[in-house]
Amino acid sequence: MEFRTAAVIGLGLIGGSVARELAGRGVRVLGADRDRDSVDAALRAGVLAAPLLHGLEGIEDADLVVMAVPVDAARAVLYDVARCASRAQLVTDVGSTKRAVVAAAEAAGLGPRFVGSHPLAGDHRSGWAASRLGLFEGARVFLTPAPSSGDAALALARSLWDSLRARVEVVADEVHDRTLAWISHLPQALATALACALAARGVPRRELGPGGRDASRLAGSSVEMWTGIALENADELGPALSAVEAEIAALRTTLERGDADALRRFFAGGKRWFDEEER
Amino acid sequence: MEFRTAAVIGLGLIGGSVARELAGRGVRVLGADRDRDSVDAALRAGVLAAPLLHGLEGIEDADLVVMAVPVDAARAVLYDVARCASRAQLVTDVGSTKRAVVAAAEAAGLGPRFVGSHPLAGDHRSGWAASRLGLFEGARVFLTPAPSSGDAALALARSLWDSLRARVEVVADEVHDRTLAWISHLPQALATALACALAARGVPRRELGPGGRDASRLAGSSVEMWTGIALENADELGPALSAVEAEIAALRTTLERGDADALRRFFAGGKRWFDEEER
Repeated sequence: MEFRTAAVIGLGLIGGSVARELAGRGVRVLGADRDRDSVDAALRAGVLAAPLLHGLEGIEDADLVVMAVPVDAARAVLYDVARCASRAQLVTDVGSTKRAVVAAAEAAGLGPRFVGSHPLAGDHRSGWAASRLGLFEGARVFLTPAPSSGDAALALARSLWDSLRARVEVVADEVHDRTLAWISHLPQALATALACALAARGVPRRELGPGGRDASRLAGSSVEMWTGIALENADELGPALSAVEAEIAALRTTLERGDADALRRFFAGGKRWFDEEER
Repeated sequence: MEFRTAAVIGLGLIGGSVARELAGRGVRVLGADRDRDSVDAALRAGVLAAPLLHGLEGIEDADLVVMAVPVDAARAVLYDVARCASRAQLVTDVGSTKRAVVAAAEAAGLGPRFVGSHPLAGDHRSGWAASRLGLFEGARVFLTPAPSSGDAALALARSLWDSLRARVEVVADEVHDRTLAWISHLPQALATALACALAARGVPRRELGPGGRDASRLAGSSVEMWTGIALENADELGPALSAVEAEIAALRTTLERGDADALRRFFAGGKRWFDEEER
Protein backbone atom coordinates (compact mmCIF):
# COMPACT_ATOMS: atom_id res chain seq x y z
CA MET A 1 0.00 0.00 0.00
CA GLU A 2 1.50 3.32 -1.12
CA PHE A 3 -0.30 5.25 1.61
CA ARG A 4 0.77 5.71 5.20
CA THR A 5 -2.02 7.96 6.45
CA ALA A 6 -5.49 8.27 4.97
CA ALA A 7 -8.30 10.68 5.78
CA VAL A 8 -11.77 9.27 5.18
CA ILE A 9 -14.51 11.90 5.29
CA GLY A 10 -17.89 10.28 5.75
CA LEU A 11 -18.09 6.87 7.45
CA GLY A 12 -21.24 5.43 5.87
CA LEU A 13 -21.54 2.20 3.90
CA ILE A 14 -18.87 3.10 1.35
CA GLY A 15 -16.59 5.36 3.42
CA GLY A 16 -16.76 3.03 6.41
CA SER A 17 -15.89 0.05 4.23
CA VAL A 18 -12.95 1.91 2.64
CA ALA A 19 -11.72 2.82 6.13
CA ARG A 20 -11.95 -0.81 7.25
CA GLU A 21 -10.00 -2.04 4.20
CA LEU A 22 -7.27 0.57 4.62
CA ALA A 23 -6.90 -0.05 8.35
CA GLY A 24 -6.69 -3.78 7.64
CA ARG A 25 -3.74 -3.08 5.34
CA GLY A 26 -1.80 -1.17 7.96
CA VAL A 27 -2.72 2.34 6.87
CA ARG A 28 -3.25 4.87 9.67
CA VAL A 29 -6.84 6.04 9.11
CA LEU A 30 -8.23 9.36 10.28
CA GLY A 31 -11.95 9.83 9.93
CA ALA A 32 -14.78 12.31 10.12
CA ASP A 33 -18.54 12.02 10.01
CA ARG A 34 -21.30 14.48 10.83
CA ASP A 35 -22.75 11.69 12.96
CA ARG A 36 -20.54 11.57 16.05
CA ASP A 37 -21.79 8.04 16.91
CA SER A 38 -20.32 6.70 13.68
CA VAL A 39 -16.92 8.22 14.52
CA ASP A 40 -17.07 6.73 18.01
CA ALA A 41 -18.03 3.31 16.65
CA ALA A 42 -15.18 3.41 14.13
CA LEU A 43 -12.74 4.37 16.89
CA ARG A 44 -14.01 1.57 19.14
CA ALA A 45 -13.70 -0.91 16.26
CA GLY A 46 -10.04 0.06 15.95
CA VAL A 47 -10.60 1.20 12.36
CA LEU A 48 -9.82 4.85 13.04
CA ALA A 49 -6.50 5.78 14.62
CA ALA A 50 -7.95 9.21 15.43
CA PRO A 51 -10.86 11.43 14.51
CA LEU A 52 -10.47 14.38 12.21
CA LEU A 53 -11.40 17.29 14.38
CA HIS A 54 -13.54 20.29 13.57
CA GLY A 55 -12.59 21.87 10.22
CA LEU A 56 -10.81 18.64 9.27
CA GLU A 57 -7.95 19.48 11.63
CA GLY A 58 -5.36 16.73 11.31
CA ILE A 59 -5.95 16.12 7.59
CA GLU A 60 -2.56 17.71 6.83
CA ASP A 61 -0.95 14.38 7.81
CA ALA A 62 -2.85 12.42 5.16
CA ASP A 63 -1.24 11.36 1.88
CA LEU A 64 -4.64 10.00 0.75
CA VAL A 65 -8.00 11.74 1.13
CA VAL A 66 -11.23 9.84 0.42
CA MET A 67 -14.44 11.87 0.46
CA ALA A 68 -17.49 9.66 1.03
CA VAL A 69 -20.23 12.19 1.61
CA PRO A 70 -23.45 12.76 -0.39
CA VAL A 71 -22.58 14.22 -3.80
CA ASP A 72 -24.20 17.58 -3.07
CA ALA A 73 -22.10 17.95 0.08
CA ALA A 74 -18.81 17.10 -1.67
CA ARG A 75 -18.27 20.57 -3.13
CA ALA A 76 -17.94 22.31 0.23
CA VAL A 77 -15.69 19.55 1.54
CA LEU A 78 -13.42 19.90 -1.49
CA TYR A 79 -12.61 23.51 -0.59
CA ASP A 80 -11.71 22.49 2.96
CA VAL A 81 -9.57 19.69 1.59
CA ALA A 82 -7.83 22.02 -0.89
CA ARG A 83 -7.05 24.41 1.94
CA CYS A 84 -5.75 21.88 4.46
CA ALA A 85 -4.61 18.62 2.83
CA SER A 86 -1.23 19.88 1.77
CA ARG A 87 0.51 16.52 1.81
CA ALA A 88 -2.15 14.49 -0.04
CA GLN A 89 -0.88 12.73 -3.20
CA LEU A 90 -4.40 11.66 -4.13
CA VAL A 91 -7.76 13.17 -3.35
CA THR A 92 -10.71 11.07 -4.45
CA ASP A 93 -14.40 10.65 -3.72
CA VAL A 94 -16.82 7.73 -4.03
CA GLY A 95 -19.94 9.55 -5.27
CA SER A 96 -22.46 8.23 -7.78
CA THR A 97 -22.26 11.27 -10.09
CA LYS A 98 -18.99 12.61 -11.41
CA ARG A 99 -19.37 15.70 -13.60
CA ALA A 100 -20.04 18.08 -10.71
CA VAL A 101 -17.34 16.77 -8.38
CA VAL A 102 -14.67 16.77 -11.11
CA ALA A 103 -15.56 20.36 -12.01
CA ALA A 104 -15.53 21.35 -8.34
CA ALA A 105 -12.13 19.74 -7.78
CA GLU A 106 -10.74 21.68 -10.73
CA ALA A 107 -12.29 24.89 -9.45
CA ALA A 108 -10.81 24.28 -6.00
CA GLY A 109 -7.36 23.88 -7.52
CA LEU A 110 -7.18 20.19 -6.64
CA GLY A 111 -7.27 18.99 -10.27
CA PRO A 112 -3.70 17.63 -10.54
CA ARG A 113 -4.15 15.55 -7.38
CA PHE A 114 -7.79 14.60 -7.95
CA VAL A 115 -9.32 11.51 -9.56
CA GLY A 116 -13.00 10.73 -9.04
CA SER A 117 -13.93 7.19 -7.98
CA HIS A 118 -17.28 5.46 -8.03
CA PRO A 119 -17.44 1.92 -6.67
CA LEU A 120 -20.64 0.20 -7.81
CA ALA A 121 -20.97 -1.61 -4.51
CA GLY A 122 -23.96 -0.06 -2.76
CA ASP A 123 -27.31 -1.58 -2.15
CA HIS A 124 -30.25 -0.35 -0.06
CA ARG A 125 -28.28 -0.37 3.21
CA SER A 126 -26.49 2.68 4.48
CA GLY A 127 -24.49 3.97 7.43
CA TRP A 128 -21.46 2.79 9.37
CA ALA A 129 -23.39 -0.24 10.66
CA ALA A 130 -23.69 -1.51 7.07
CA SER A 131 -19.98 -1.04 6.26
CA ARG A 132 -17.90 -4.18 5.96
CA LEU A 133 -14.73 -5.79 4.67
CA GLY A 134 -14.95 -7.35 1.23
CA LEU A 135 -17.56 -4.92 -0.09
CA PHE A 136 -15.41 -3.96 -3.08
CA GLU A 137 -14.18 -7.41 -4.02
CA GLY A 138 -15.04 -7.92 -7.67
CA ALA A 139 -17.09 -4.70 -7.77
CA ARG A 140 -16.81 -2.34 -10.74
CA VAL A 141 -15.10 0.93 -9.84
CA PHE A 142 -15.22 3.82 -12.29
CA LEU A 143 -12.32 6.27 -12.20
CA THR A 144 -12.93 9.71 -13.69
CA PRO A 145 -9.81 11.88 -13.98
CA ALA A 146 -10.11 15.66 -13.87
CA PRO A 147 -8.93 17.63 -16.93
CA SER A 148 -5.70 18.44 -15.14
CA SER A 149 -5.31 15.12 -13.27
CA GLY A 150 -1.71 14.00 -13.13
CA ASP A 151 -0.57 10.54 -14.22
CA ALA A 152 0.71 9.94 -10.71
CA ALA A 153 -2.70 10.60 -9.18
CA LEU A 154 -4.39 8.25 -11.65
CA ALA A 155 -1.81 5.55 -10.97
CA LEU A 156 -2.38 5.93 -7.22
CA ALA A 157 -6.16 5.72 -7.66
CA ARG A 158 -5.75 2.54 -9.70
CA SER A 159 -3.46 1.08 -7.12
CA LEU A 160 -5.87 1.95 -4.30
CA TRP A 161 -8.83 0.13 -5.86
CA ASP A 162 -6.72 -2.71 -7.24
CA SER A 163 -5.55 -3.42 -3.72
CA LEU A 164 -9.21 -3.52 -2.61
CA ARG A 165 -9.72 -6.10 -5.39
CA ALA A 166 -12.19 -4.00 -7.34
CA ARG A 167 -12.39 -4.02 -11.15
CA VAL A 168 -11.18 -0.60 -12.30
CA GLU A 169 -12.55 1.15 -15.41
CA VAL A 170 -11.35 4.63 -16.41
CA VAL A 171 -14.05 6.73 -18.12
CA ALA A 172 -14.79 10.38 -18.83
CA ASP A 173 -17.08 12.00 -16.26
CA GLU A 174 -19.86 12.69 -18.82
CA VAL A 175 -19.80 9.08 -20.03
CA HIS A 176 -19.95 7.91 -16.43
CA ASP A 177 -22.99 10.03 -15.59
CA ARG A 178 -24.88 9.01 -18.71
CA THR A 179 -24.15 5.31 -18.13
CA LEU A 180 -25.04 5.44 -14.44
CA ALA A 181 -28.37 7.12 -15.17
CA TRP A 182 -29.39 3.85 -16.84
CA ILE A 183 -27.67 1.15 -14.83
CA SER A 184 -28.14 2.59 -11.35
CA HIS A 185 -30.19 5.79 -11.01
CA LEU A 186 -33.07 4.46 -13.13
CA PRO A 187 -33.54 1.22 -11.13
CA GLN A 188 -33.38 3.27 -7.92
CA ALA A 189 -36.00 5.74 -9.14
CA LEU A 190 -38.31 2.92 -10.29
CA ALA A 191 -38.06 1.08 -6.98
CA THR A 192 -38.98 4.29 -5.16
CA ALA A 193 -41.81 5.03 -7.61
CA LEU A 194 -43.19 1.52 -7.00
CA ALA A 195 -42.88 2.05 -3.24
CA CYS A 196 -44.68 5.41 -3.40
CA ALA A 197 -47.50 3.95 -5.49
CA LEU A 198 -47.94 1.04 -3.07
CA ALA A 199 -47.78 3.39 -0.08
CA ALA A 200 -50.49 5.60 -1.61
CA ARG A 201 -52.61 2.50 -2.19
CA GLY A 202 -52.12 1.45 1.45
CA VAL A 203 -50.23 -1.74 0.61
CA PRO A 204 -47.41 -2.45 3.11
CA ARG A 205 -44.24 -4.17 1.96
CA ARG A 206 -44.86 -7.27 4.08
CA GLU A 207 -47.74 -8.13 1.71
CA LEU A 208 -45.30 -8.67 -1.18
CA GLY A 209 -43.91 -12.02 -2.28
CA PRO A 210 -40.21 -12.75 -2.81
CA GLY A 211 -40.14 -11.21 -6.31
CA GLY A 212 -41.89 -7.98 -5.34
CA ARG A 213 -39.54 -7.65 -2.39
CA ASP A 214 -36.56 -7.85 -4.72
CA ALA A 215 -38.09 -5.28 -7.07
CA SER A 216 -38.74 -2.79 -4.25
CA ARG A 217 -35.65 -3.30 -2.10
CA LEU A 218 -33.84 -0.18 -3.35
CA ALA A 219 -36.64 1.95 -1.91
CA GLY A 220 -34.85 1.52 1.42
CA SER A 221 -31.80 3.47 0.21
CA SER A 222 -30.48 6.66 1.78
CA VAL A 223 -32.78 9.64 1.11
CA GLU A 224 -30.06 12.31 1.35
CA MET A 225 -27.70 10.44 -0.93
CA TRP A 226 -30.30 9.86 -3.64
CA THR A 227 -31.73 13.37 -3.52
CA GLY A 228 -28.24 14.66 -4.31
CA ILE A 229 -27.60 12.13 -7.05
CA ALA A 230 -30.94 12.74 -8.79
CA LEU A 231 -30.46 16.52 -8.69
CA GLU A 232 -26.95 16.35 -10.12
CA ASN A 233 -27.83 13.86 -12.84
CA ALA A 234 -31.33 15.16 -13.63
CA ASP A 235 -30.49 15.81 -17.30
CA GLU A 236 -29.42 12.20 -17.85
CA LEU A 237 -31.99 10.53 -15.59
CA GLY A 238 -34.93 12.28 -17.26
CA PRO A 239 -34.61 10.52 -20.65
CA ALA A 240 -34.06 7.15 -18.93
CA LEU A 241 -37.30 7.64 -16.98
CA SER A 242 -39.10 8.60 -20.20
CA ALA A 243 -37.97 5.35 -21.81
CA VAL A 244 -39.53 3.29 -19.03
CA GLU A 245 -42.68 5.42 -19.06
CA ALA A 246 -43.01 4.61 -22.76
CA GLU A 247 -42.64 0.89 -22.05
CA ILE A 248 -45.33 1.03 -19.35
CA ALA A 249 -47.69 3.08 -21.52
CA ALA A 250 -47.26 0.58 -24.38
CA LEU A 251 -47.97 -2.27 -21.98
CA ARG A 252 -51.17 -0.57 -20.81
CA THR A 253 -52.37 -0.19 -24.39
CA THR A 254 -51.54 -3.84 -25.03
CA LEU A 255 -53.56 -4.87 -21.99
CA GLU A 256 -56.51 -2.72 -23.06
CA ARG A 257 -56.46 -4.36 -26.48
CA GLY A 258 -56.05 -7.83 -24.96
CA ASP A 259 -53.23 -8.45 -27.44
CA ALA A 260 -51.70 -11.76 -26.34
CA ASP A 261 -48.97 -11.74 -29.00
CA ALA A 262 -47.77 -8.26 -28.04
CA LEU A 263 -47.83 -9.25 -24.35
CA ARG A 264 -45.77 -12.32 -25.10
CA ARG A 265 -43.24 -10.16 -26.97
CA PHE A 266 -43.06 -7.79 -23.99
CA PHE A 267 -42.32 -10.50 -21.42
CA ALA A 268 -40.07 -12.36 -23.89
CA GLY A 269 -38.05 -9.17 -24.48
CA GLY A 270 -37.40 -8.83 -20.76
CA LYS A 271 -36.53 -12.48 -20.34
CA ARG A 272 -34.14 -12.47 -23.31
CA TRP A 273 -32.30 -9.55 -21.73
CA PHE A 274 -32.19 -11.39 -18.39
CA ASP A 275 -31.06 -14.69 -19.92
CA GLU A 276 -28.34 -13.13 -22.08
CA GLU A 277 -26.27 -12.60 -18.98
CA GLU A 278 -26.23 -16.32 -18.20
CA ARG A 279 -24.68 -17.23 -21.55
CA MET B 1 -52.40 -36.34 5.24
CA GLU B 2 -56.00 -36.91 4.14
CA PHE B 3 -54.98 -37.86 0.61
CA ARG B 4 -53.80 -41.23 -0.64
CA THR B 5 -53.36 -40.46 -4.32
CA ALA B 6 -52.75 -37.04 -5.84
CA ALA B 7 -52.66 -35.97 -9.47
CA VAL B 8 -50.38 -33.00 -10.15
CA ILE B 9 -50.85 -31.51 -13.60
CA GLY B 10 -47.88 -29.31 -14.50
CA LEU B 11 -44.50 -30.04 -12.90
CA GLY B 12 -42.90 -26.60 -12.94
CA LEU B 13 -41.63 -24.59 -9.97
CA ILE B 14 -44.92 -24.70 -8.06
CA GLY B 15 -46.40 -27.98 -9.28
CA GLY B 16 -43.07 -29.78 -8.95
CA SER B 17 -42.64 -28.47 -5.42
CA VAL B 18 -46.18 -29.55 -4.44
CA ALA B 19 -45.45 -33.01 -5.88
CA ARG B 20 -42.22 -33.25 -3.87
CA GLU B 21 -43.99 -32.26 -0.64
CA LEU B 22 -46.83 -34.74 -1.17
CA ALA B 23 -44.49 -37.59 -2.08
CA GLY B 24 -42.43 -36.81 1.01
CA ARG B 25 -45.59 -37.27 3.11
CA GLY B 26 -46.34 -40.70 1.71
CA VAL B 27 -48.93 -39.66 -0.86
CA ARG B 28 -48.87 -41.58 -4.14
CA VAL B 29 -48.30 -38.86 -6.74
CA LEU B 30 -49.28 -39.11 -10.38
CA GLY B 31 -48.06 -36.36 -12.64
CA ALA B 32 -48.34 -34.82 -16.07
CA ASP B 33 -46.43 -32.13 -17.91
CA ARG B 34 -46.38 -31.11 -21.56
CA ASP B 35 -42.58 -31.35 -21.26
CA ARG B 36 -41.84 -35.07 -21.22
CA ASP B 37 -38.36 -34.45 -19.76
CA SER B 38 -39.91 -32.99 -16.61
CA VAL B 39 -42.09 -36.08 -16.17
CA ASP B 40 -39.08 -38.33 -16.64
CA ALA B 41 -37.02 -36.30 -14.16
CA ALA B 42 -39.82 -36.46 -11.58
CA LEU B 43 -40.11 -40.22 -12.06
CA ARG B 44 -36.33 -40.67 -11.70
CA ALA B 45 -36.37 -38.54 -8.55
CA GLY B 46 -38.93 -40.92 -7.08
CA VAL B 47 -41.42 -38.08 -6.73
CA LEU B 48 -43.91 -39.51 -9.19
CA ALA B 49 -45.24 -43.02 -8.67
CA ALA B 50 -46.48 -43.00 -12.26
CA PRO B 51 -47.13 -40.57 -15.10
CA LEU B 52 -50.64 -39.51 -16.04
CA LEU B 53 -51.02 -40.76 -19.54
CA HIS B 54 -52.54 -39.07 -22.56
CA GLY B 55 -55.92 -37.48 -21.76
CA LEU B 56 -55.05 -37.66 -18.05
CA GLU B 57 -55.66 -41.41 -18.05
CA GLY B 58 -55.16 -42.65 -14.50
CA ILE B 59 -56.51 -39.51 -12.83
CA GLU B 60 -59.62 -41.43 -11.77
CA ASP B 61 -57.55 -42.90 -8.89
CA ALA B 62 -56.76 -39.46 -7.44
CA ASP B 63 -58.59 -38.08 -4.41
CA LEU B 64 -56.67 -34.79 -4.85
CA VAL B 65 -56.08 -32.95 -8.12
CA VAL B 66 -53.64 -30.00 -8.26
CA MET B 67 -53.52 -28.05 -11.52
CA ALA B 68 -50.26 -26.14 -11.87
CA VAL B 69 -50.39 -24.95 -15.46
CA PRO B 70 -50.38 -21.37 -16.82
CA VAL B 71 -53.69 -19.68 -15.95
CA ASP B 72 -54.82 -19.46 -19.57
CA ALA B 73 -54.33 -23.22 -19.99
CA ALA B 74 -56.26 -24.10 -16.82
CA ARG B 75 -59.72 -23.81 -18.40
CA ALA B 76 -59.20 -26.65 -20.88
CA VAL B 77 -57.63 -28.84 -18.20
CA LEU B 78 -60.63 -28.24 -15.90
CA TYR B 79 -62.99 -29.86 -18.41
CA ASP B 80 -60.76 -32.93 -18.68
CA VAL B 81 -60.59 -33.09 -14.89
CA ALA B 82 -64.37 -32.75 -14.56
CA ARG B 83 -64.82 -35.59 -17.02
CA CYS B 84 -62.30 -38.02 -15.52
CA ALA B 85 -61.48 -37.25 -11.88
CA SER B 86 -64.53 -38.96 -10.46
CA ARG B 87 -62.99 -39.81 -7.10
CA ALA B 88 -61.39 -36.42 -6.35
CA GLN B 89 -62.51 -34.83 -3.07
CA LEU B 90 -60.62 -31.62 -3.83
CA VAL B 91 -59.66 -30.04 -7.13
CA THR B 92 -57.44 -26.98 -6.80
CA ASP B 93 -55.01 -24.93 -8.86
CA VAL B 94 -52.03 -22.73 -7.98
CA GLY B 95 -52.51 -19.90 -10.50
CA SER B 96 -51.82 -16.22 -9.91
CA THR B 97 -55.28 -15.03 -11.01
CA LYS B 98 -58.46 -16.49 -9.58
CA ARG B 99 -61.63 -15.00 -11.11
CA ALA B 100 -61.35 -16.88 -14.39
CA VAL B 101 -60.43 -20.27 -12.94
CA VAL B 102 -63.19 -20.11 -10.30
CA ALA B 103 -65.74 -19.28 -13.01
CA ALA B 104 -64.40 -22.05 -15.23
CA ALA B 105 -64.57 -24.58 -12.42
CA GLU B 106 -68.21 -23.64 -11.80
CA ALA B 107 -68.98 -23.86 -15.50
CA ALA B 108 -67.35 -27.28 -15.69
CA GLY B 109 -69.54 -28.51 -12.84
CA LEU B 110 -66.59 -28.85 -10.47
CA GLY B 111 -67.72 -26.04 -8.11
CA PRO B 112 -68.61 -28.14 -5.05
CA ARG B 113 -65.21 -29.89 -5.13
CA PHE B 114 -63.17 -26.86 -6.24
CA VAL B 115 -61.23 -24.32 -4.19
CA GLY B 116 -58.67 -22.09 -5.89
CA SER B 117 -55.20 -21.82 -4.32
CA HIS B 118 -52.46 -19.30 -4.93
CA PRO B 119 -49.21 -19.77 -3.05
CA LEU B 120 -47.16 -16.56 -3.11
CA ALA B 121 -43.93 -18.50 -3.39
CA GLY B 122 -42.64 -17.90 -6.89
CA ASP B 123 -39.67 -15.84 -7.94
CA HIS B 124 -37.99 -15.49 -11.33
CA ARG B 125 -37.09 -19.18 -11.58
CA SER B 126 -39.33 -21.67 -13.32
CA GLY B 127 -39.53 -25.31 -14.36
CA TRP B 128 -39.05 -28.66 -12.64
CA ALA B 129 -35.35 -27.91 -12.08
CA ALA B 130 -36.34 -25.00 -9.83
CA SER B 131 -38.84 -27.01 -7.77
CA ARG B 132 -37.82 -27.88 -4.23
CA LEU B 133 -38.92 -28.95 -0.77
CA GLY B 134 -39.65 -26.14 1.67
CA LEU B 135 -40.82 -23.67 -0.98
CA PHE B 136 -44.14 -23.09 0.79
CA GLU B 137 -42.86 -22.90 4.34
CA GLY B 138 -44.13 -19.61 5.76
CA ALA B 139 -45.43 -18.48 2.35
CA ARG B 140 -48.83 -16.80 2.06
CA VAL B 141 -51.39 -18.99 0.29
CA PHE B 142 -54.66 -17.45 -0.82
CA LEU B 143 -57.67 -19.79 -1.00
CA THR B 144 -60.57 -18.67 -3.18
CA PRO B 145 -63.68 -20.85 -2.90
CA ALA B 146 -66.08 -21.14 -5.81
CA PRO B 147 -69.68 -19.95 -5.28
CA SER B 148 -70.77 -23.55 -4.80
CA SER B 149 -67.64 -24.80 -3.00
CA GLY B 150 -68.51 -27.26 -0.25
CA ASP B 151 -67.24 -26.88 3.32
CA ALA B 152 -65.49 -30.22 2.99
CA ALA B 153 -63.50 -29.03 -0.03
CA LEU B 154 -62.44 -25.84 1.75
CA ALA B 155 -61.42 -27.81 4.84
CA LEU B 156 -59.34 -30.15 2.68
CA ALA B 157 -57.67 -27.21 0.91
CA ARG B 158 -56.80 -25.68 4.28
CA SER B 159 -55.44 -28.95 5.52
CA LEU B 160 -53.35 -29.42 2.36
CA TRP B 161 -51.57 -26.07 2.68
CA ASP B 162 -51.36 -26.22 6.47
CA SER B 163 -49.49 -29.47 6.14
CA LEU B 164 -47.09 -27.74 3.71
CA ARG B 165 -46.60 -25.11 6.46
CA ALA B 166 -47.96 -22.23 4.40
CA ARG B 167 -49.96 -19.36 5.92
CA VAL B 168 -53.52 -19.73 4.60
CA GLU B 169 -55.81 -16.75 3.89
CA VAL B 170 -59.32 -17.24 2.49
CA VAL B 171 -60.46 -14.41 0.20
CA ALA B 172 -63.01 -13.81 -2.54
CA ASP B 173 -61.62 -14.25 -6.04
CA GLU B 174 -62.20 -10.58 -7.01
CA VAL B 175 -60.42 -9.37 -3.88
CA HIS B 176 -57.55 -11.70 -4.65
CA ASP B 177 -57.13 -10.47 -8.21
CA ARG B 178 -57.26 -6.80 -7.20
CA THR B 179 -54.75 -7.32 -4.40
CA LEU B 180 -52.38 -9.35 -6.54
CA ALA B 181 -52.38 -6.74 -9.29
CA TRP B 182 -50.59 -4.47 -6.80
CA ILE B 183 -48.41 -6.80 -4.76
CA SER B 184 -47.25 -9.13 -7.52
CA HIS B 185 -48.30 -8.32 -11.10
CA LEU B 186 -47.21 -4.67 -10.86
CA PRO B 187 -43.65 -5.42 -9.63
CA GLN B 188 -43.36 -8.06 -12.36
CA ALA B 189 -44.52 -5.66 -15.09
CA LEU B 190 -42.13 -2.94 -13.87
CA ALA B 191 -39.16 -5.28 -13.79
CA THR B 192 -39.91 -6.31 -17.37
CA ALA B 193 -40.46 -2.69 -18.45
CA LEU B 194 -37.06 -1.79 -16.96
CA ALA B 195 -35.49 -4.75 -18.73
CA CYS B 196 -37.03 -3.79 -22.08
CA ALA B 197 -35.88 -0.17 -21.72
CA LEU B 198 -32.33 -1.28 -20.90
CA ALA B 199 -32.36 -3.79 -23.75
CA ALA B 200 -33.46 -1.09 -26.20
CA ARG B 201 -30.65 1.14 -24.90
CA GLY B 202 -28.13 -1.69 -25.41
CA VAL B 203 -27.30 -2.04 -21.72
CA PRO B 204 -26.73 -5.67 -20.70
CA ARG B 205 -27.70 -6.85 -17.20
CA ARG B 206 -24.10 -7.59 -16.22
CA GLU B 207 -23.47 -3.82 -16.20
CA LEU B 208 -25.84 -3.36 -13.26
CA GLY B 209 -24.81 -3.15 -9.63
CA PRO B 210 -26.32 -5.24 -6.83
CA GLY B 211 -29.36 -2.96 -6.41
CA GLY B 212 -30.23 -2.80 -10.11
CA ARG B 213 -29.91 -6.58 -10.30
CA ASP B 214 -32.47 -6.94 -7.50
CA ALA B 215 -34.82 -4.49 -9.22
CA SER B 216 -34.66 -6.33 -12.56
CA ARG B 217 -34.56 -9.95 -11.38
CA LEU B 218 -38.23 -10.64 -12.08
CA ALA B 219 -37.60 -9.98 -15.77
CA GLY B 220 -36.30 -13.56 -15.86
CA SER B 221 -39.73 -15.02 -15.05
CA SER B 222 -41.68 -17.41 -17.26
CA VAL B 223 -43.02 -15.69 -20.39
CA GLU B 224 -45.98 -18.02 -20.89
CA MET B 225 -47.07 -17.79 -17.28
CA TRP B 226 -46.96 -14.00 -17.17
CA THR B 227 -48.64 -13.52 -20.54
CA GLY B 228 -51.60 -15.48 -19.20
CA ILE B 229 -51.68 -13.64 -15.87
CA ALA B 230 -51.49 -10.18 -17.44
CA LEU B 231 -54.26 -11.01 -19.92
CA GLU B 232 -56.58 -12.37 -17.25
CA ASN B 233 -55.97 -9.54 -14.81
CA ALA B 234 -55.66 -6.70 -17.35
CA ASP B 235 -58.54 -4.72 -15.81
CA GLU B 236 -56.85 -4.67 -12.39
CA LEU B 237 -53.25 -4.33 -13.57
CA GLY B 238 -54.02 -1.30 -15.77
CA PRO B 239 -54.84 1.10 -12.89
CA ALA B 240 -51.83 -0.13 -10.90
CA LEU B 241 -49.56 0.64 -13.87
CA SER B 242 -51.16 4.08 -14.20
CA ALA B 243 -50.36 4.83 -10.57
CA VAL B 244 -46.66 4.14 -11.13
CA GLU B 245 -46.67 6.08 -14.40
CA ALA B 246 -48.02 9.07 -12.45
CA GLU B 247 -45.22 8.71 -9.87
CA ILE B 248 -42.59 8.61 -12.60
CA ALA B 249 -44.10 11.56 -14.47
CA ALA B 250 -44.17 13.59 -11.25
CA LEU B 251 -40.54 12.69 -10.61
CA ARG B 252 -39.55 13.83 -14.09
CA THR B 253 -41.25 17.19 -13.53
CA THR B 254 -39.50 17.50 -10.17
CA LEU B 255 -36.14 16.83 -11.83
CA GLU B 256 -36.84 19.38 -14.57
CA ARG B 257 -37.65 21.98 -11.92
CA GLY B 258 -34.60 21.00 -9.84
CA ASP B 259 -36.88 20.91 -6.79
CA ALA B 260 -34.72 19.45 -4.02
CA ASP B 261 -37.50 19.47 -1.41
CA ALA B 262 -39.90 17.57 -3.64
CA LEU B 263 -37.15 15.08 -4.53
CA ARG B 264 -36.42 14.54 -0.86
CA ARG B 265 -40.13 13.91 -0.23
CA PHE B 266 -40.18 11.38 -3.08
CA PHE B 267 -37.23 9.34 -1.79
CA ALA B 268 -38.38 9.75 1.83
CA GLY B 269 -41.84 8.44 0.92
CA GLY B 270 -40.32 5.28 -0.54
CA LYS B 271 -37.98 4.79 2.40
CA ARG B 272 -40.77 5.28 4.96
CA TRP B 273 -42.75 2.55 3.22
CA PHE B 274 -39.68 0.29 3.19
CA ASP B 275 -38.80 0.97 6.83
CA GLU B 276 -42.34 0.46 8.14
CA GLU B 277 -41.94 -3.23 7.63
CA GLU B 278 -38.97 -3.40 9.98
CA ARG B 279 -40.97 -1.95 12.89
